[in-house]
Amino acid sequence: MKLTKYTDYALRVLIYLALSNGRQCSIAEIAQSYGVSENHLMKVVQQLAREGLVDSTRGRGGGLRLQKNAEAIRIGAVVRLTEPDMDLAECASCIITGLCGLTPVFGRATQAFLQVLDEVTLADVIRSGDGLRAMLRLGLVVKDNRTPKRVTASSRRPVRAARRG
Amino acid sequence: MKLTKYTDYALRVLIYLALSNGRQCSIAEIAQSYGVSENHLMKVVQQLAREGLVDSTRGRGGGLRLQKNAEAIRIGAVVRLTEPDMDLAECASCIITGLCGLTPVFGRATQAFLQVLDEVTLADVIRSGDGLRAMLRLGLVVKDNRTPKRVTASSRRPVRAARRG
Repeated sequence: MKLTKYTDYALRVLIYLALSNGRQCSIAEIAQSYGVSENHLMKVVQQLAREGLVDSTRGRGGGLRLQKNAEAIRIGAVVRLTEPDMDLAECASCIITGLCGLTPVFGRATQAFLQVLDEVTLADVIRSGDGLRAMLRLGLVVKDNRTPKRVTASSRRPVRAARRG
Repeated sequence: MKLTKYTDYALRVLIYLALSNGRQCSIAEIAQSYGVSENHLMKVVQQLAREGLVDSTRGRGGGLRLQKNAEAIRIGAVVRLTEPDMDLAECASCIITGLCGLTPVFGRATQAFLQVLDEVTLADVIRSGDGLRAMLRLGLVVKDNRTPKRVTASSRRPVRAARRG
């Protein structure tokens, strides 16, 4: 039983932005920190912006940041937005659909699952704030994977640079 | 969020056998009833036999039947056996593993999910017994999808025929 990569990436982006405390971040920076492809994050970020979770500003000085407080973003709500469907099995295409007792059981199990996620906010998930920032090398420009370098005001670049206020 | 096809097929096989009340059934018959490939069911059945859920007898007069009462087979136990892993996301390969608050939350959500499935048995799932038998055309030989024909003793064939005791 797996959540999609898409949901995984959506949660990673939100965690990253929550840890960045309102600083505007680029997709390139987030992708580099997690070691995932920018392309994969692009579509995710577009949806998060459309859903009002992320504020996305284009151009010089632009970037991504959370549009809501981390306390107001429930993990269950994110998973509901990003999972393509919450049907555990292809009941609709099975010949015994309608009478099979598994369909309602799967529905109840999924509700129990989501209820746990609904009780947790993005703020709860990043309780180990400084430890997580260190793991993600937040506030470091990562030119490549071997040579992290601390950002200075003059080293800011609009697209590829990780910045810290 | 999806269970694998493998789990889906395992549950379908168990439902079919539970509805067959101890009659020995062939893989071909089950595959035909659900309109799925025999090959897909083969591996599933091997595991169900290995785990002591299904009794599999080879040769003429052989076939598959439940090795336990349907009341004794919990859906949660089946899903635990057939899902390759219950980790919702690839936390282990993520750079923030260890400090990310999502990992324990995902664990709790999965437990809540499985707890619902643990409360349900195969017998609960087939409460609409006769309706389900009709949908699956249990007791009919299905030569193709258009011409169901009732089985007689003389029409029994060891591999492809659906049989009723």
